[in-house]
Amino acid sequence: MSWLYALDLFGVAVFAITGALMAGRKSMDLFGVMVIAIITALGGGTLRDVILNNYPVVWIRNDLYILVAVLAAIGTVVWVRLTRPIHETGLLVADALGLAVFTVIGTQVAMQQGVPVSAAVIMGVMTGVAGGVMRDIICNEIPLIFHKEIYATACIAGSVVYIVLHQLNLPANMDVKLAIAVVLIIRLAAIRWHLGLPRFHLLDRDRPPE
Amino acid sequence: MSWLYALDLFGVAVFAITGALMAGRKSMDLFGVMVIAIITALGGGTLRDVILNNYPVVWIRNDLYILVAVLAAIGTVVWVRLTRPIHETGLLVADALGLAVFTVIGTQVAMQQGVPVSAAVIMGVMTGVAGGVMRDIICNEIPLIFHKEIYATACIAGSVVYIVLHQLNLPANMDVKLAIAVVLIIRLAAIRWHLGLPRFHLLDRDRPPE
Amino acid sequence: MSWLYALDLFGVAVFAITGALMAGRKSMDLFGVMVIAIITALGGGTLRDVILNNYPVVWIRNDLYILVAVLAAIGTVVWVRLTRPIHETGLLVADALGLAVFTVIGTQVAMQQGVPVSAAVIMGVMTGVAGGVMRDIICNEIPLIFHKEIYATACIAGSVVYIVLHQLNLPANMDVKLAIAVVLIIRLAAIRWHLGLPRFHLLDRDRPPE
Repeated sequence: MSWLYALDLFGVAVFAITGALMAGRKSMDLFGVMVIAIITALGGGTLRDVILNNYPVVWIRNDLYILVAVLAAIGTVVWVRLTRPIHETGLLVADALGLAVFTVIGTQVAMQQGVPVSAAVIMGVMTGVAGGVMRDIICNEIPLIFHKEIYATACIAGSVVYIVLHQLNLPANMDVKLAIAVVLIIRLAAIRWHLGLPRFHLLDRDRPPE
Repeated sequence: MSWLYALDLFGVAVFAITGALMAGRKSMDLFGVMVIAIITALGGGTLRDVILNNYPVVWIRNDLYILVAVLAAIGTVVWVRLTRPIHETGLLVADALGLAVFTVIGTQVAMQQGVPVSAAVIMGVMTGVAGGVMRDIICNEIPLIFHKEIYATACIAGSVVYIVLHQLNLPANMDVKLAIAVVLIIRLAAIRWHLGLPRFHLLDRDRPPE
Repeated sequence: MSWLYALDLFGVAVFAITGALMAGRKSMDLFGVMVIAIITALGGGTLRDVILNNYPVVWIRNDLYILVAVLAAIGTVVWVRLTRPIHETGLLVADALGLAVFTVIGTQVAMQQGVPVSAAVIMGVMTGVAGGVMRDIICNEIPLIFHKEIYATACIAGSVVYIVLHQLNLPANMDVKLAIAVVLIIRLAAIRWHLGLPRFHLLDRDRPPE
C-alpha cells in the first residue's frame, strides 16, 4: 500500500518539523534540534514496537525514516534562518494528517499481532501522540495534548472506526481511508472551532459549579 | 492465587485514582485524566515487562487491567464533581497496600525468570514506584518518592523479605503474605510518624553539619 | 577484551557520581540519590538493549554493574559529607572517558546485530547520552546535552569513526581504541575552549542575524 507508506513518511517529516520548532523555542543547539525532531517523529512508533515486542523497530527496519526526520529538521532550521515565516495553519493541517496516519498504522500493527481491542486502541493513540509527549517532557513542558483542543480524542475515534470497519472486509482499503478521514475531520473541526474536552480542576471546588 | 489477583486489580484502581487526582491538580482535560491514570496504574508493570522481555505485557495479556484503570479514573472525576471529599488517609493506606502488592508481584515475576537478586529487587521496586514517577514527570514535578516519607525503602525491604522467604518454601504463600505485610507496615509507620530518609543537600555545605 | 570491560565499569562509576551529585543539588533523600545514580549510569545501556531486543539487558546479565553504580553513589555521599571538595575538572575528564567508552560499546553492540549504519550511530549516541538525559528529565531540568559544549556531537564522530575503522579489520582493536580517542579528544577540546554548536533561537528572529 504505497500511498500509506508515503503518508507515513510525510507524517514523520511533519512531526520532525514540530519537534525542531519546539527545540528552537528552547534555544537548543543544532544537535538538540536534530534529537528532538527524531524523537518527536519516531518516538511513538518506537514505543509501540518495544511494547509489542515488534523487533526490529520501525527505524531500524528501514533507515529512510531517520533520513526523512533529519532532513526535515535541517530544512526547518534553514527555512527559519532565511527568515521565512512558518505557515501556522498549514503546519496544523499537516500535523493533523500525520496524526491520523500514525494512529491508523499503529492500530493496524497492533491488530495484526492479535492484541485485545483495548490494547489496539491504546497502541494507535500511543503511536499518534507519544512522540509529541516525549518532545514536551524533554523540553520541560506539560504535554500539550492534555490541555489543548481535542487531539487524542480524535485518535481514539479513528482507532475505533478502523477496528470496526476492518471486521467488515471492505474493498480498496476503505477501512484505512475512512479511519484516517475520521481523525482528520475531528481534528480540523477542533482547530477551527477551538473545541476542547471539559477540564478537571481539582483545586477549584469552591468556584461555582460549571 | 486469586486473592493476589484481586489485590493486584485493587492496586491498579488505587494508583489510577492518584493519577487522576494529580491530573486534576494540573487542570488537565478528561483525556489527560484518563491517560495519567492509566500510566500511573500500569506504567511500572509495563516497564518491568519490557525490560524483562516478558511479552505480552500485563495489560495486553489481560484487558481487565485497562478497564479497571479507566473506570477508577472516571469514578474519581464523578466523585469530585459531586463535591464529595477525598478521604486523604484512606487513600494513603490504600496506596500503601497497592504499593506492597505491586512490589511483591514484580519481585516474583523477576525471580521466576531467574534474574540475579539485585535485578529482582530493582524489578520489584520499579513495579511499585515507576508508574508514580512517570505520573510526576509528565506533570512536570520532581517525583515525590525522592522527597517524601520512606516510600521506595519500604519496597526494597519487602522485596528482599520475599526473596529470602521464598527460599524457605513456606506453606500457604506465607512468603507473599509476609512480604506484603512488611511493605505495608513500614509505609504506614512512615506516614504516621513522618519518617524520612536523610536528605543529601549538595549546596548547603556551608550550613552547620546536621 | 578485559581493558574495555574495566573502562566500561569505570564509566558506570563516573556516570553514577554525576547522577548522585545532581540528586544532591535537588536535595533528594538517600534513596533518590541511589536511583538517580543507577539511572544515569545504566539508563543508556538499558534503553539500547530494550530497543535492540537484546535480552537480558546489561545489568541483568551481570550484576556487577548495579553494584558499581550503588557503591559510587554511596561513595559520593560519604565524600561530600566529609566535606571533601569535588574535583570539577577531574570529574569532567572522567565523564568524557566514560562517554567515549559507552558510545563505542553501544555502536559495537548495534553493529553486531547487523542494524543499518544510521541506527548504529543512534544506538552509540543513545548509549552515551540517554542516561544523562533521563537524569535531567527526572530532576526537572532541560537536558544539559542540548545546551552545553559539544557533547553528543563528539559521540556521533566517535561512532562514525568506529564504524569506518571496523570495516578495515585493523589489528589489536585499533578501531575501538581510536574511536574512544576521537570522542575523548573532541570532548576535552570542547571543555577546554568552551566550544559549542550554534544555537537555534526561534523567538529571536528580530535580533540582528548572528
